[in-house]
This record gives sequence, structure tokens and C-alpha cells, in this order.
Amino acid sequence: MTHQLLKGKRGIIFGALDAASIAWKTAEAVHEAGGTFVLTNAPVALRMGTINELGEKTNAPIIPADATNTEDLNQLIDQAVEQLGGKLDFVLHSIGMSINVRKGKHYTDLNYDWLTKGWDVSAVSFHKLMQALYKKDAMNEWGSIVALSYIAAQRTFPNYNDMADNKAYLESIARSFGYFFGKEKKVRVNTISQSPTLTTAGKGVKGLNGFLRYAEKTAPLGNATASECADYTVMLFSDYTRKVTLQNLFHDGGFSFVGVSQDIIDELDELDETAS
Amino acid sequence: MTHQLLKGKRGIIFGALDAASIAWKTAEAVHEAGGTFVLTNAPVALRMGTINELGEKTNAPIIPADATNTEDLNQLIDQAVEQLGGKLDFVLHSIGMSINVRKGKHYTDLNYDWLTKGWDVSAVSFHKLMQALYKKDAMNEWGSIVALSYIAAQRTFPNYNDMADNKAYLESIARSFGYFFGKEKKVRVNTISQSPTLTTAGKGVKGLNGFLRYAEKTAPLGNATASECADYTVMLFSDYTRKVTLQNLFHDGGFSFVGVSQDIIDELDELDETAS
Amino acid sequence: MTHQLLKGKRGIIFGALDAASIAWKTAEAVHEAGGTFVLTNAPVALRMGTINELGEKTNAPIIPADATNTEDLNQLIDQAVEQLGGKLDFVLHSIGMSINVRKGKHYTDLNYDWLTKGWDVSAVSFHKLMQALYKKDAMNEWGSIVALSYIAAQRTFPNYNDMADNKAYLESIARSFGYFFGKEKKVRVNTISQSPTLTTAGKGVKGLNGFLRYAEKTAPLGNATASECADYTVMLFSDYTRKVTLQNLFHDGGFSFVGVSQDIIDELDELDETAS
Amino acid sequence: MTHQLLKGKRGIIFGALDAASIAWKTAEAVHEAGGTFVLTNAPVALRMGTINELGEKTNAPIIPADATNTEDLNQLIDQAVEQLGGKLDFVLHSIGMSINVRKGKHYTDLNYDWLTKGWDVSAVSFHKLMQALYKKDAMNEWGSIVALSYIAAQRTFPNYNDMADNKAYLESIARSFGYFFGKEKKVRVNTISQSPTLTTAGKGVKGLNGFLRYAEKTAPLGNATASECADYTVMLFSDYTRKVTLQNLFHDGGFSFVGVSQDIIDELDELDETAS
Repeated sequence: MTHQLLKGKRGIIFGALDAASIAWKTAEAVHEAGGTFVLTNAPVALRMGTINELGEKTNAPIIPADATNTEDLNQLIDQAVEQLGGKLDFVLHSIGMSINVRKGKHYTDLNYDWLTKGWDVSAVSFHKLMQALYKKDAMNEWGSIVALSYIAAQRTFPNYNDMADNKAYLESIARSFGYFFGKEKKVRVNTISQSPTLTTAGKGVKGLNGFLRYAEKTAPLGNATASECADYTVMLFSDYTRKVTLQNLFHDGGFSFVGVSQDIIDELDELDETAS
Repeated sequence: MTHQLLKGKRGIIFGALDAASIAWKTAEAVHEAGGTFVLTNAPVALRMGTINELGEKTNAPIIPADATNTEDLNQLIDQAVEQLGGKLDFVLHSIGMSINVRKGKHYTDLNYDWLTKGWDVSAVSFHKLMQALYKKDAMNEWGSIVALSYIAAQRTFPNYNDMADNKAYLESIARSFGYFFGKEKKVRVNTISQSPTLTTAGKGVKGLNGFLRYAEKTAPLGNATASECADYTVMLFSDYTRKVTLQNLFHDGGFSFVGVSQDIIDELDELDETAS
Repeated sequence: MTHQLLKGKRGIIFGALDAASIAWKTAEAVHEAGGTFVLTNAPVALRMGTINELGEKTNAPIIPADATNTEDLNQLIDQAVEQLGGKLDFVLHSIGMSINVRKGKHYTDLNYDWLTKGWDVSAVSFHKLMQALYKKDAMNEWGSIVALSYIAAQRTFPNYNDMADNKAYLESIARSFGYFFGKEKKVRVNTISQSPTLTTAGKGVKGLNGFLRYAEKTAPLGNATASECADYTVMLFSDYTRKVTLQNLFHDGGFSFVGVSQDIIDELDELDETAS
Repeated sequence: MTHQLLKGKRGIIFGALDAASIAWKTAEAVHEAGGTFVLTNAPVALRMGTINELGEKTNAPIIPADATNTEDLNQLIDQAVEQLGGKLDFVLHSIGMSINVRKGKHYTDLNYDWLTKGWDVSAVSFHKLMQALYKKDAMNEWGSIVALSYIAAQRTFPNYNDMADNKAYLESIARSFGYFFGKEKKVRVNTISQSPTLTTAGKGVKGLNGFLRYAEKTAPLGNATASECADYTVMLFSDYTRKVTLQNLFHDGGFSFVGVSQDIIDELDELDETAS
């Protein structure tokens, strides 16, 4: 959309791996909306993905940074402010991974070193990022910080495993840090609880296809796509949402407020009839 | 269970229609726990059901009352206090009906006279009951008032229709009145959000069987039965829960905190395979 | 703001009484964003307020309608579609009143005729409005319907009285009707839980000043103003939020996710010291 | 109370430090209710406290264990089952500490090594404990596992610091693990969100007195005491709550469902008048 909602605004976008990433779509949408930004990702992710293409397309410098490393974050912020020409207005944190999920460890048989690593990458990195931004006073007033979350932080879903607990921690950080960022700097902090989305990262989650279909049939408006999430994020970065903070915002076609849809009940009934 | 948790406690139980009613099971459990009480229901419900049997079994006087009628409620309370020999310690409100549901009116095509009647019976009656109890100062300190609710007050379920909105209103009354009943009289007020239960009243809800099966497969511990709800209510009437108030308490085998269970995903997958 | 977010979109705005109204500010913001609309209010409210001025300023026809009267709503919708030149894209329901609040009746001493009237005006009118829109198929796909609510629907606040229960019912209607409006018509339905706002209607609420101050000191970003609420509503009407539905959206500077702020604790401490 | 609700039931109680501990009160209440159990705590806590006194009073063996150490947990469970004479029916996890809180580090200036240590002790230990119980199949059917939490997991409170995020993670573990413990073993898992309580551990939290007073004036029934929490926990261990699982249960005199009380508004108003 071409409303130039973010004209003159500067930011950092974490987590664009390839064209299926929500962060990738967000970078495109922010660019279209007139915002300028730095792209960043872990060095290993930068090597795996095709982020250079995105950087060229959106005129965005690419700065590698390990989001769990305070030194890296400090350098990233310094460079972003310098290269973009001023303090920041928006930041997207789209980072998450669980080694236990990747390795197929069941939630009742977790490896705690992997748990700790996944928690550090998926959740604590959000605190580290905000602490670095806060200490450097790198955000403009009425800036907006967003991280991506998922309904599994509130309710249990099969196979989401320790990522559910990481997302609960992430959402709590948004409230806890949002309080101080709001009071002291007039910056808002929120998480988006997005529909399940078939990103390259999401492909690792067992049984995701069956679940995507379930979600699609439950949400009255269907699942929200990565592109729709990008538009929604543009709006959260814009001046239309200045007083929205400390929240976890559902962006899921209505999924989270449906107990069960008639479609699902009908399908299960059909199965009963088939069986009998 | 025979722990005599309610020994010496007096109360009123609304809504016992027949042996399938949660209120019926609660009356039996409260009796077993040593509590004494008056049974009440609308005159028409008294004629339809078999409440005399329950009254004999639990030594409980039966006093007809229209719960939407303040006069009736006043008389009921006066008689209960007199016949039971003192102020009250517990009250169960298990009342609900929707003419729109009974008549098969779709939620997008409601009759507003029926809507108003159902709201008055299912929700406002709870306020009328508490206002009568409050004005008469008929509750002992640390008394407990409970109404039955359902998860449809928070999330949408097919065919629950205007009862969902009634339950949301009912739960709000519990919070609003609970504040004053707590501050001024040290009485707690809560609602129980119970598993779907196949009561005689519930039989009117279209597609309830399919939904009961869905709920059973979603709740990690399975649906809570009417008897289990009765035990839980005894506990809420007891002195073990004195500081629990203004709440909607889920009693549903874990249903409300599951997004979707693996069982459901597996069934839907099976259906896909059958179809292909 | 001048991004023309609503260019080409048509709608109806209920509840603009005078320049302090949220609906008034919303009409101005929607107009500025390029939307066209009909203004409506109850005949008595139209006489009391200064809505003609707003109509002229925003080029909006003014059509009187009693929102509790289905006939009036049907005529309003027909005329709106005709005068605006097509089906509707957005509707704002900003209607609420409690006779019990106005007359100073305490929540434990309510008049039930007044309760019923207030519920009909403040909550059922939202269902009646949507049922009329739905039956007439008067909304375009991806249209957006918004009603204004308040955090008292979730937690108890002094003096908010039966309006708390009305708002809980209103929010439930949004979920219940939103399900069908989403599935069948691809229309989203949400409520905004707005900061306490000193509107002409709000002035009737006892002790509102003390409470506004409390809210201001609790919300990390301070209370959201009526103008900010108007901007937020424009965004909810726009295409940036197409997959947001069935929700109650907090727009309150972070108030609802703060337990208590340090400012409040400090003030109370100061009082202790003053007293000793 | 002497209803023998836990007669014949066996368990483990973590976290009794001294007579001010909730776990200490719970041990006394469980003992009075007829339950038998093992007491445990970290070796350093055992040395600091007076747990021997409690062990003698309740006939409970004391087994030291570091709750972050799987080996220790395995030995603890084996010994508990052996010494108590059978599989377990209940477990209380009352463990929490933040080095950042103790050392006075502000939430915007956290030390991440301390953060990780506090998270491991306060939250991950709950997973480690359940994973050990689950793998050893050490719980009887219809057993009950409870951990203590706090409303700061949902809303922000001053000075609660990284403990808020730890509690959010803890509550998520209860849901995630509760799903599997329910499905596979018919064991329920819940957290109790308890009123702020002046325990020896709690004394480290800055400004706790002012906050306790605020909570007392907000909760319609006043704050829940440690003894009341013990009674409530007995009930959650009993057979009266068999279908309650995956929940965070508020036990706080109504605090969490009050927006603000009239008492607080009155105090702040008084301050205004004093000032003017």
C-alpha cells in the first residue's frame, strides 16, 4: 500500500531470512510505506538466506549481529543510527528457534542446554535488544517496538514444544520493558500474535500442515498471511497507534476467539459417519 | 465424599430439575457434606421435574420462586432463613434458558423479545438474587455465592447463540456485585465455567453431541461431569476457598487452555486420507 | 493525518453529540482520511447537540435513528447506502447510557426497568444494528464494524455500575456476531477498549475526575485522548487491519496491563508520611 | 482444618524455609489434613532456615535437593517414593529468586548471567521436576502438582523485575506440561497466583510494604494470607478438584479483578485536598 505511513521514519528489522519470512515481507511493506531501515540477522542466517536481494530492493544496509550478544547489538544500533541519519522510530524483532523442536525432542524429554539456548535466542534477545536501545537512548519519542509471538503462549498446541514457554516469556518482556520504555521515553512495545505461517523456519514444526488447515477452518476470516502481517506491522509502526502499548495483539483472522468452528465439528461428524 | 465440609452451613440451591441437572448433583453432594438447604425453581419447572424426590432424599424444603421476580426472591429468602434457622452460607444459581435457542432462531436472526426474556432469566436473575440477599443482609460473613457459566462467554462456539452473551453478562455481574458483597459483607461471588454437560436443558442445544465429543477429545483430563462439578462447588462453598472471589473458575478438564489437541488434528488428518 | 487511508470508503457513524464526543472526532478524522459517511443519533440527542455543524464540516448527511428500533435502523441503512452511493465499508457504534448511573442508583440497589433500558441502548443496539446490516447484505467484503467499550468489562471500577455489565455484553456480541459476519461476509467486528475520556456523556459519571487522574498516572503513555481514539479507529477501518476480528482492542496508553504504577505507590506513601 | 482431605495421600513439598513461608504453612496444613510428605529445599536454604523443626512437627523426612539439578531431583523422587511407601499424589513447587532483585539491578539494566540463574531456579526447575516425575512415572493417577505464581505474570508491577517474566514462563510450563501429564497420566498441573505475602523471601522486594497496603485496599476481601493459601492448596491436592488443570488460579481476595477500588481513589483525592 502506498500511503507513505512511515515517511521519514527509521528503524531496524531483525529476522528476514528469505522471501517467505514475515520480516522479509515487513521490510518490503515498510519500504513501500516510505520508511528506511537496516536489515540484520545472525551471521549464519545471513549466509543461509538471500537477504542481499532484499537489501538491494529496499535500499537497506545489512549489518550482521547475534541478537544474544550485547556487543553485537550495541554496534548494530550505533551503525544503524549513523547510517540512517538519526535516532530510530521502529524495530521489528522476528527471531525464534528451538533446538529441541529441530531435533525432535518431546516436551516431556527436553534437553536443558538446548532449552536455554532457544530461550536466549527467542526471548531474552528481545530484552537485550531493548536494554541496548534504552541505554543508548536510541529511540525517538513515540517510536514503536514490535516482536512476533504466537497464541501458544496462552493455550497449548501440539508440537509447539518449548517455543510456547519462550513466547510467554517474550510477551512478558514486552509488558515489563514497555512500562519503562513508555514512562521514560514515550516508546511503545507490543507483540503480535500472528496466525501460523508457513515460513522457512515454520517448516521445521512437525504436523504444521494439518494444523494450518485446522487454523484456516477455525478463523472466520481465514489465517492471516505474512503479507497481511507486514501491513499490520506498518500500522503499528505508524502514528495511528501511538497509545497502543504493553500488549499482545492478535492478528489471526479471529482464530483466538473461536472455541471451535462449525466447519471442524462438521468434519468430525463426517468422519463418524464414514466410520460407522 | 464424606468429609462434612459444609457441616452447619445453610443455603439455597436454584435449578435442580431432574437427576441429570448439575444443581441436582450439587444438592446431593452438599447434603452428603453436611449442609442444609432449600431447593427452589420456577413453578413451571417444579411441575415438569421430579424435585420432590430430591427434597425427600436431602431433607430439603422446596419453595417455588420465579428468579426474575423480586417479590418471589424476597419471600424465598425470608422462608429459607426461617426454615433453615439462620442466615445463609451458600447459594447456587444454576439457571439458564434461551427461547431463541429453543425455537431454532439463528444468531443473525434473533427475536428481541425472546432475547430479553432469556437475558432476564439467565443473567439478570443473578443480580436480582444478590440484590435481594444484600438488602436483607441474609448472608453470613464468608458466605459463598456461585453461578454456573460456560466458556462461550470468552470464545465463540456454534449454536450457543445468545446464551454466550448472557453468560458474559452473568460473569460481569459476578465481578461487579462481588466487589460490594466482598467489601461490605465479606461474601465471595464466583462463576464456574463448566464443561459442556448433557443435562435435560442442554439437550435442546443443536449439535451438542458432536461438540461434547470434541470437548472430550480436547480436554487433557476429559470433560468434567455433573458430579465432579458438584464436588467442586462443595469446595467453593467450604472454608478452603475463603479468599477466592470475583472470578470465573474453569472446571473443564483443561479444555479452555488447549488450543487444539493432537487427537483432533489426527482425526482431521485421517479424514483427509480417507477422502484422497 | 492526511494519508487518505479511507479514500473511496463509505460508512455510518453513530453517537456524535458534540465536539467532545469520540464519535465527533472520529467523523473528523474519517473525513480527513477521505471517507464519506452518514451521521446518526437518536432524535433527542440530535436536538441536544450541535451535530449540524459537524455535518456541514464533513459533508455528511444527518439521519435520525433510534438505535434500539429495528425499523429506524433499516431505514437508516437504506438511506445511507442510497445517499453514499453504494454498500458500506465501515460502521462506528459509539452509544452508551445508564439511567441507573444518571439517577445515582447504587449497583446494589438498581432499578430493573432502567437496567433493561440501558442494556438495550448500550449493548443490544449493537446486535440490532449488525442484524439489520447482515440481513440487508449492506456491508462490502472486508468492511469493518467497531463499537466502543471500556476495561470495566473485565475488571471492576467504582461507579461504573451497570455499564460494566453492558460493556461485557457488548464485547460478547462482537465475538458472537463477528464469527458469522466473518465467515459469511468477510466483515470484521471489534470493540475498542478506550481510556476513560471526558466526554459530555462521561461527565455524568461520579468521581470521574479522580479516576481520570488515577488512569493518567497508571498508563505508561498516559490516557489516550478522543482524537487519538479517532486515529486508531481510522486504522481499524482501513485495509491495514483486514485480519483483525472478534477482538476487544485496548487503546489506553498501556493502562490495562499495569498492575499498579510506581507513581501511585509513591503518592500513597506520601499520604502516609503526611498523616504521621 | 481437620477434614482429613488428604488421608492416604503422599507428596513432596519444596521451599519451606521458615515459619513465614507459604510452603511451611502448606506442610502444616497438609499434615493436619492427613497427608504424608517429604520436605525438600536447596542445601544452602536448609542450612539457613529452621526446617528441622517443621520436619519433626509433621513427621516429614527432609531430603536436600537442588531443584535445578536433574540428578538431585531423581534421587529426591526415588527416596520420597521409597520412604513414603508408594507413588506420589501431590507436589508443591514454591521456589523463586532473582539475583537481579537482590542486587538492586533495575529492569532496564539487568545482568544476564543473574537473569539466567534466576530463570533456572524460579521457572525451569518446575519443568525439570515434572520431567523427572513423568519419566519415573512417579505420580499416581489423579495426582496434583502445584506451583506458586503471581499476578505480575499478567500485568506489570513496580520492582517485581525479572521475576515477572519468570512467573510468565512458569505458568506457561504448567499449561504445556499439564497437557501431557493430563493426557498420559491423568495428573493435573496448576499454578496459584497468590496475594503478595510477606515471606522471608518477599522481604527482599523493594517497596513491598507500600504495595502490600495497596493490595489490601484493592482486594474486596483483603489479601490472602499464607495460611489461607495453604488451605487452598490442600483443596487443590484433594479429590474435590480432579478436573481442574492447566490453569493459573487466582487466590488473592479479588485483587486481580478490581481495576481500582474506591478506597484508593479516596486516598488519592484526600492527598489532592491536603496539597491544595
